[in-house]
Amino acid sequence: MKVIAFTGMPGSGKSEAVKVAIEMGIPVVRMGDCVWEEVKRRGLEINDENVGRIANEMRERYGKDIWAKRTFEKIDPSWDTVVIDGIRNIEEVEFFREKLGKDFTLVAIHASPETRYRRLMERRREDDSTTLEKIKERDERELGWGIGVVIAMADVIIVNEGSLDEFREEVENMLM
Amino acid sequence: MKVIAFTGMPGSGKSEAVKVAIEMGIPVVRMGDCVWEEVKRRGLEINDENVGRIANEMRERYGKDIWAKRTFEKIDPSWDTVVIDGIRNIEEVEFFREKLGKDFTLVAIHASPETRYRRLMERRREDDSTTLEKIKERDERELGWGIGVVIAMADVIIVNEGSLDEFREEVENMLM
Repeated sequence: MKVIAFTGMPGSGKSEAVKVAIEMGIPVVRMGDCVWEEVKRRGLEINDENVGRIANEMRERYGKDIWAKRTFEKIDPSWDTVVIDGIRNIEEVEFFREKLGKDFTLVAIHASPETRYRRLMERRREDDSTTLEKIKERDERELGWGIGVVIAMADVIIVNEGSLDEFREEVENMLM
Repeated sequence: MKVIAFTGMPGSGKSEAVKVAIEMGIPVVRMGDCVWEEVKRRGLEINDENVGRIANEMRERYGKDIWAKRTFEKIDPSWDTVVIDGIRNIEEVEFFREKLGKDFTLVAIHASPETRYRRLMERRREDDSTTLEKIKERDERELGWGIGVVIAMADVIIVNEGSLDEFREEVENMLM
């Protein structure tokens, strides 16, 4: 079994990479879904505040790799290839590396801050109150969770500075 | 003026990239030299312990970008291109970005942990007591200083998984 985890800063193209996997018929397990399930299980409303709070609470209580553990349980061993979306800290990476060894590949999608900020600003809907400042705050939040370490320790880096077609092709080749 | 800063995990090929710059006649300013100078200025012996201690002491006293400031003073404005070696934290990056704007390019050299560990193990001399454990400790030390964040925020990533010639060519093209 090939387990491929995507990571990347906001606007890097990580979601597009996940989309390519889905289009190829590859099952995608979202780490965030495990958090949502826990929030629902507790009878709480799904909103940013509850999701963030439960995610952190569980990390403090059961360890920084708790969401990796929950995600791992969702992987069907009969799958040939599976994509994991949402790795955020190195403890999660270490959990998967220990469980899966050579079957695990951590793929970071990278684009320069300039490219990412441009993309995120362009992507806004008309009713969107996103500002460059808010985008930079989101960067800092992700970096605070340790995504920089995850990128530094990636097995593969896909640079996404060119066209969408080029990027999609590179992701496809990597998933094949 | 083009100011290009190289960053990268141990064994990524950062030193090789600096070597390419030197061979091209591009001046290289090493951030570590500023630390050495400070250690010497204080009449202390140059060794790992003193260098590490003074580096940290100065960061605590004058801010995390102190070595970027000292390095910046060494840049001759008449230079066409200059390479900075030894960026370790995002505060240093922010200092250069603020001072230099578009003239500053942060280049991260990346290779997978597997490739880096293999290179570092092969590079050992016979009398070298380096072990995989020590190599991993060095990784953790660098990551603790915040090099992951620097890599995540790089303007350019050069992936160094292929041959030495390919890598040198890519660095050369980037520096031209």
